[in-house]
Amino acid sequence: MRYKCILAYDGTAYYGFQIQEDLPTVELELKKALKNAFGLDIKVYGSGRTDKGVHAKGQVIHFDLESEIPAEGVKRALNSFLPKDIYISNVEIVNEEFHARFSAIGKEYIYVINMGEYNPLERNYVFQYNHELNVKAMEEAIKIFEGEHDFRAFVTDNKEKENCIRTITHTSIRKENENIIFKFTGDGFLRYQVRNMVGLLIKVGENKLSKDQVK
Amino acid sequence: MRYKCILAYDGTAYYGFQIQEDLPTVELELKKALKNAFGLDIKVYGSGRTDKGVHAKGQVIHFDLESEIPAEGVKRALNSFLPKDIYISNVEIVNEEFHARFSAIGKEYIYVINMGEYNPLERNYVFQYNHELNVKAMEEAIKIFEGEHDFRAFVTDNKEKENCIRTITHTSIRKENENIIFKFTGDGFLRYQVRNMVGLLIKVGENKLSKDQVK
Repeated sequence: MRYKCILAYDGTAYYGFQIQEDLPTVELELKKALKNAFGLDIKVYGSGRTDKGVHAKGQVIHFDLESEIPAEGVKRALNSFLPKDIYISNVEIVNEEFHARFSAIGKEYIYVINMGEYNPLERNYVFQYNHELNVKAMEEAIKIFEGEHDFRAFVTDNKEKENCIRTITHTSIRKENENIIFKFTGDGFLRYQVRNMVGLLIKVGENKLSKDQVK
Repeated sequence: MRYKCILAYDGTAYYGFQIQEDLPTVELELKKALKNAFGLDIKVYGSGRTDKGVHAKGQVIHFDLESEIPAEGVKRALNSFLPKDIYISNVEIVNEEFHARFSAIGKEYIYVINMGEYNPLERNYVFQYNHELNVKAMEEAIKIFEGEHDFRAFVTDNKEKENCIRTITHTSIRKENENIIFKFTGDGFLRYQVRNMVGLLIKVGENKLSKDQVK
């Protein structure tokens, strides 16, 4: 039986989703919980990797179990073994055509910046920029990212020789009090791509880079 | 010169505000930062204690320095030595009649409960009750706390033989999506008083206690 799960996590303590030898990752915690709950090494398929320190509100994963256990039971068992910063909010039995990665029709990435005073309570969830930014200029520049582009320039890890062409279907910037909320929707994101795109947008917001230079 | 400061902190890692031998507390971090910044052991006066794990958005403290340093310089120096979960948002030079504790005209305590699904991202900031509650019943019961009362029944530490009479000037309950936000304003709160009052209100919200029983 194939189980599709939706999970939320506080990524502060993790080096991203994907297993990396000896480092704390979300996937490792999921595998440990599966082993504790069902006594087996079960492969976990994620919708994608997330970067170090990134949080999730609704990441999709799937895995297969040999016996049919009710979805609610799987949810309860896994949550009882998962650490407090990872939570499975939904478990569903799906047919075997479903695949967390290949069935995904898009991914949404949110990045939040605080332009106001440093906020110790949000330091792990909102980037503490703590200075004013030219939001209007950033609103214009972010639109340049929309469409199909080679995003190689935004990959931190230069060893990645993979195909860097991705499609960003939608971008938006919203101001909420002193916070700026960047939203990127697309077919997938490269390692640190979002962080680096936001870094460039900040330079635009500082009036150090023009829209044309971003292009 | 007397300096009045407003500070915010994430109390997750602390055993409350007040210094307790060998335990991490906010006051200890302030004293360490003062020592690092000015080379002296400086006494810190807080507006009040806070309980273990409690966060602050605008707690007031004061201390005296022998030399006159501009308020902005004091703010910058202290923040540079404070850990990331404590931040001084405002420093002001005040006259020596000002006292963080005795000049306080009131204190406001906010407690938030999530009635919806467990949220790992808010686990340190919002109590994860994760079940429906009868908000209407709690709205009626909370009003019983208003006025001058002996709150001895709500003190966890029974060794406290002190005067337990306190005045609560205002209470409110607000629903925001699946969160219930309790607000208590008063002249001061005893150790764990707010937590225990909310605990009782939860029993009312579970329809296990009536308003009269609370009284």
